[in-house]
Amino acid sequence: MIEDKNPQRTSLSELGEFGLINHLTKHFSLNNSSTIKGVGDDAAVLAATDKQTLVTTDLLIEGVHFDLSYMPLKHLGYKAVMVNLSDVYAMNGTAEQITVSIAISNRFPLEAIEELYAGIKLACDTYKIDLIGGDTTSSTKGMLISVTAIGSAKEEDVVYRIGAQETDLIVVSGDLGAAYLGLQVLEREKQVFQVDPNNQPDLDAYTYLIERQLKPEARKDVKGILEELEVQPTSMIDISDGLSSEIMHICSQSKVGCKLYEDKIPLDPQVISACEEFNIDSTMVALSGGEDYELLFTVPIADFDKIKGNPNFSIIGHITAEDQGLNLVTRANQEIALKAQGWNALKQE
Amino acid sequence: MIEDKNPQRTSLSELGEFGLINHLTKHFSLNNSSTIKGVGDDAAVLAATDKQTLVTTDLLIEGVHFDLSYMPLKHLGYKAVMVNLSDVYAMNGTAEQITVSIAISNRFPLEAIEELYAGIKLACDTYKIDLIGGDTTSSTKGMLISVTAIGSAKEEDVVYRIGAQETDLIVVSGDLGAAYLGLQVLEREKQVFQVDPNNQPDLDAYTYLIERQLKPEARKDVKGILEELEVQPTSMIDISDGLSSEIMHICSQSKVGCKLYEDKIPLDPQVISACEEFNIDSTMVALSGGEDYELLFTVPIADFDKIKGNPNFSIIGHITAEDQGLNLVTRANQEIALKAQGWNALKQE
Repeated sequence: MIEDKNPQRTSLSELGEFGLINHLTKHFSLNNSSTIKGVGDDAAVLAATDKQTLVTTDLLIEGVHFDLSYMPLKHLGYKAVMVNLSDVYAMNGTAEQITVSIAISNRFPLEAIEELYAGIKLACDTYKIDLIGGDTTSSTKGMLISVTAIGSAKEEDVVYRIGAQETDLIVVSGDLGAAYLGLQVLEREKQVFQVDPNNQPDLDAYTYLIERQLKPEARKDVKGILEELEVQPTSMIDISDGLSSEIMHICSQSKVGCKLYEDKIPLDPQVISACEEFNIDSTMVALSGGEDYELLFTVPIADFDKIKGNPNFSIIGHITAEDQGLNLVTRANQEIALKAQGWNALKQE
Repeated sequence: MIEDKNPQRTSLSELGEFGLINHLTKHFSLNNSSTIKGVGDDAAVLAATDKQTLVTTDLLIEGVHFDLSYMPLKHLGYKAVMVNLSDVYAMNGTAEQITVSIAISNRFPLEAIEELYAGIKLACDTYKIDLIGGDTTSSTKGMLISVTAIGSAKEEDVVYRIGAQETDLIVVSGDLGAAYLGLQVLEREKQVFQVDPNNQPDLDAYTYLIERQLKPEARKDVKGILEELEVQPTSMIDISDGLSSEIMHICSQSKVGCKLYEDKIPLDPQVISACEEFNIDSTMVALSGGEDYELLFTVPIADFDKIKGNPNFSIIGHITAEDQGLNLVTRANQEIALKAQGWNALKQE
């Protein structure tokens, strides 16, 4: 849509590859003393440190992971960074650098790529991240973004998926399911628009849902909150594919089972009302929706008093012995086995 | 081509995303003590070290950077790693880890992706690199590979593009132009094949050229050779876009000029004979061909005796004052200004 509305179009080939990278990155400044050299040499250089280094990468592809008919490019740039920072925070680390590679077809003018980078810059400024490298090339079709995030943590602070112990409490930050429902609202509006382009949608009832889908925030704050509470998680993961899929990763790697309580799963009121409207089960949305970018972690049961009542966290269950399996206790007090129904990028197309 | 010849086809969606990643990475072992945790958590974890960390990334796209009609997938995987390691070596560093993200359309069966990963694994085994992460997703069209390489170097060993000084010698490893000519040979054979699929090409005269295009090696050895010679380069870059483009990066960042000598540019005999056959100027091929992945560096003139006669290196010119510009002294002893004619990925399509 941006392409049609934008009066100014500068062809990408006018600038050339190095001109384009310079043009896009010149307004980025460095926020971290660990960044010795960012963009502009064969490789970026990071300072030696007594911390461990965390590395994670994600690839977002037009038509698979995003739809530009309702995802503004600035939001896409922001979200591509968030998705990666979230993985660093899920190790209980501090994110410090990113590289961003993009491939773009000629249908995008320079002004569109500037929008994308404006979103990347906003994310870098807000989260104190340095853009230290990347690659810009043409694609034969569509757009894709590959981001690698680099962070650090003291060895004793790093939290893996592997450490959950029997009787540990299962805790989640924020609330779940809103991003998935935001996507449903946007998909519906896209279809309405295709039928009647003059229809003016009233999206006031869905603002939180749409924001969670288009402009998610990674939970940078959780590390600090847990430090203040003097709680060290025994395992942690970020919720990108839905609660069900993520707790399965923790349980399989930690060789434990779990019991989740349906009535403890945190849901925003907009999620509950949208589920009624779309006639979807809200628990299913929380379990399988994905893209929430909240953190799921386990803490020793001795920390119950420190966590309970904290407005940032919900205790949603506890870890059991491996042979008890992975179960959800429903509101009707029935135990049902959890199934992985996370979003599978390979099933698309 | 592999798709047509392969009798066994396993659909990617049968495995699912996590199954696919597990399947592809299970045979990879860790080579470096700096890798604390590779694939399998939210982020990889690297050990704290007293060295600086080097980070570089490159994106390869089907139809832009490679043509699967003559690039076997195993070679593609190998080359995608080499391209990134070369950037780490160009900082005078040691490459230790990579992340690999791939997007693949459904036209590729599992067996094709296994071939790609066989090439990545061969590169990892040969160069002692650990695969520590990545992302695997579907694409709406074609294949792409995004690799990020991570390395390390002592602070005092890192060589930037910025340090070239007036009177420094300009040195290049290996020989230049072969990869570009290999591409010309392969393109010609592709056209012959399209006209006459039964034609059996005789490529004996081009084996070196084709190998340089399809299976380039990054110059891991140069760091050790220079250490033995007790030579510390003042600036360094890898030759991915052609000698002309790379010396321009060094000169512009170091704020110096240069004088290159046409008769000193190292060329393999196959390059010379192929240039005659294709009626191309061999100097132009070396200056603008690209994809050689040799290292271009500058050393103090005091090191002349240490470098001269070394079979790994050719002294091809020297650094001058900035106001003298960038010049090539031809075999006819004429000075002509250098122009950047490096390969520009944005001009494709």
